[in-house]
Amino acid sequence: VPAEEPIARRYAAVVTVGSEIVEGLRLDTNTREIAFALSSRGYHVRETVSVGDDIDVLGDLFEALLASCEVVVATGGLGPTHDDITREAASRALRLPLEERAELLDRLERLARRHRTASARDNVMRQAQILRGATVLEPTSGTAPGQVARAHGTAALVLLPGPPHEMRPMLEQALALLPATGRAPARQLSCAGITESDAQLLVQPILENHHGVGLTLLATPGLVSVVLLDDGAGPDAVHAATLACAAVLGPACYSTQGETLAEVVVRTATQKGIALATAESCTGGLVAAALTSVPGSSAVYLGGVTSYADSAKRGLLGVSDDTLESAGAVSAKTAEEMAGGVRVRLGANLSVAVTGIAGPSGGTADKPVGLVWFAVSSGAGTRSERRNLFGDRDGVRARATVTALDLLRREIERA
Amino acid sequence: VPAEEPIARRYAAVVTVGSEIVEGLRLDTNTREIAFALSSRGYHVRETVSVGDDIDVLGDLFEALLASCEVVVATGGLGPTHDDITREAASRALRLPLEERAELLDRLERLARRHRTASARDNVMRQAQILRGATVLEPTSGTAPGQVARAHGTAALVLLPGPPHEMRPMLEQALALLPATGRAPARQLSCAGITESDAQLLVQPILENHHGVGLTLLATPGLVSVVLLDDGAGPDAVHAATLACAAVLGPACYSTQGETLAEVVVRTATQKGIALATAESCTGGLVAAALTSVPGSSAVYLGGVTSYADSAKRGLLGVSDDTLESAGAVSAKTAEEMAGGVRVRLGANLSVAVTGIAGPSGGTADKPVGLVWFAVSSGAGTRSERRNLFGDRDGVRARATVTALDLLRREIERA
Repeated sequence: VPAEEPIARRYAAVVTVGSEIVEGLRLDTNTREIAFALSSRGYHVRETVSVGDDIDVLGDLFEALLASCEVVVATGGLGPTHDDITREAASRALRLPLEERAELLDRLERLARRHRTASARDNVMRQAQILRGATVLEPTSGTAPGQVARAHGTAALVLLPGPPHEMRPMLEQALALLPATGRAPARQLSCAGITESDAQLLVQPILENHHGVGLTLLATPGLVSVVLLDDGAGPDAVHAATLACAAVLGPACYSTQGETLAEVVVRTATQKGIALATAESCTGGLVAAALTSVPGSSAVYLGGVTSYADSAKRGLLGVSDDTLESAGAVSAKTAEEMAGGVRVRLGANLSVAVTGIAGPSGGTADKPVGLVWFAVSSGAGTRSERRNLFGDRDGVRARATVTALDLLRREIERA
Repeated sequence: VPAEEPIARRYAAVVTVGSEIVEGLRLDTNTREIAFALSSRGYHVRETVSVGDDIDVLGDLFEALLASCEVVVATGGLGPTHDDITREAASRALRLPLEERAELLDRLERLARRHRTASARDNVMRQAQILRGATVLEPTSGTAPGQVARAHGTAALVLLPGPPHEMRPMLEQALALLPATGRAPARQLSCAGITESDAQLLVQPILENHHGVGLTLLATPGLVSVVLLDDGAGPDAVHAATLACAAVLGPACYSTQGETLAEVVVRTATQKGIALATAESCTGGLVAAALTSVPGSSAVYLGGVTSYADSAKRGLLGVSDDTLESAGAVSAKTAEEMAGGVRVRLGANLSVAVTGIAGPSGGTADKPVGLVWFAVSSGAGTRSERRNLFGDRDGVRARATVTALDLLRREIERA
């Protein structure tokens, strides 16, 4: 397909159902996941909506969205309780009856028998109700099946359960059933140690030579994501643009596969057999928590120290009284002694240390809130870096955590 | 107002504007905050919607929502760039012109002068454009002002900037300008160490004696929130119901003021002068990170150890070879030696230790994934507790973190 004649856009919408969401009692994370899955497959997500457990409101919403979108994906309201009204709302909107599916009865009847009252048993069995003609998505966990129903023409209504671990595997199944958009999936170049505007300056000239490839930049504290979208150029051109962007971004780009920074650190350290340790003051355990969030991190991460008080820096890491008194807790020398101390005490090959002022209080004219010293220590020596990080307490801590992980990553790359 | 004649519901809607949100590139956290602020002030939030940076789509959405809601709060799209189309969309929907406000010119002209090109200066000055008759919300950080505009009748359209730290203070200002709903704010009883169904069994009988008070239960990993809503009973009745619920929930209820568990631990430890320390294996720094997320935690939290490898348990905490060999790393004895070790080494009054199997691998028939041992150590002695926690790696780690914080909280309460 030539870039001058892009394929017509396929529109999509995402709906989450649940009064606890519209009342602000629960943060909805499904919408972002589903919207990303749709847009990275080339759908244009027109809107995302959350509504309460109200059959009329939801029925009208389904009808309105299916009039303008080819795919509507909804989560929530598929369970066994009275509040679970998504099936009925879909039935009204599509004017399709709900029918008990024989293939679901066995499993649900086994579940129903565990309940003592007839009404509880009936509730369980409500989950066997499927829209006429819909494809059933069997649950891999949980009890409620999902459904992919056809609306008018080629439009599809996808119903998925609300709990994210039940939703995720069914989303993959459902997407495989949807018509192809003819567009390549979005590609994401994850970067650290570079500003959003510097990343833009580097990649902009490349995109001028790749017509039909769209660019979005996304900054989160300490990280920048360069996203390339297929605006008609096709998979080969998107792939070529991705390689060209990765080349100009150089070592700032840590993944083109959607890995997190901590995942890259754990994977590369494992490949090279480098045992890691951490020493944290202002990040207070966030670097350790990020590394240990990665399954398999126990193979390379030995452990660390959160040395919040000076006594902890002395007692657990061996930072000297002299350093703490003359240079202070937030200094190059303290960071270096923290990094060296934790590496030697744990027998690690590589360590990182962080000490700084996260705020809101504790800042001075000399050492303002946001000042953070980092040190990296290996058998080859110890070196420190100073950064002035932007943001409130949470912002400084998040940026310091990313910086520490990035220092580890670059050190491992060089090793 | 008697419970039999509740005040008419006031409807509200929340809108977020930004292509990066509908494309799933960024998690929208503003919607939850705004929806909670509205519903806890008695508004019935009918729906929350996110749309891209499209002036027609947004204009139509504003018009549709203002036809059925008394308040529409929108975030995003108020900045200086070409993508920032919320002002124009609101102008179309309300049929009100945008006018340059004299009171904003001084500040914005100072900002504009920093830019070199005329178009960049013009962009900055776009932020002085305010809907005719609207109230300006001055920014406390960032550059874009917010606006509260009147639609037909009493309906209000509130425009706020997208960055959460710019949005939050303006949201409070805007809410103070909205008509009162006549309903008391929602009350939240935050609980730990109790299941959702046990909490329900305890509070349900109380609500049968408090007509016009609504109940919502909300479970997040390890925590349960009991939310009481004014369904017409009025502030005094909601307050009385809150006290009665707190009494039956007993020590499981850690806050009726919206504090986090870590905030309660830091506050009560500070009040009682109890210095804290942590030793973590499977939670990998999350307990330390939660405590240090609280401003002022440095007054009571001395530090901790993330002893992921056995060598770290031995070297940094003094867990004995004999214990690690005979009882294993996930055992009562190891947890107790970890808690005692970190308390003595840091000179703390109270410590907590966590060691368990977060998965996905590492589980055995004897010690399955989800098995976690906790220990609490003080001058009075050390005791351990075993829990079998539910969930995947993230779920087990989150529940173990909450359990550790709750053990600290209850121990501090007794001290």
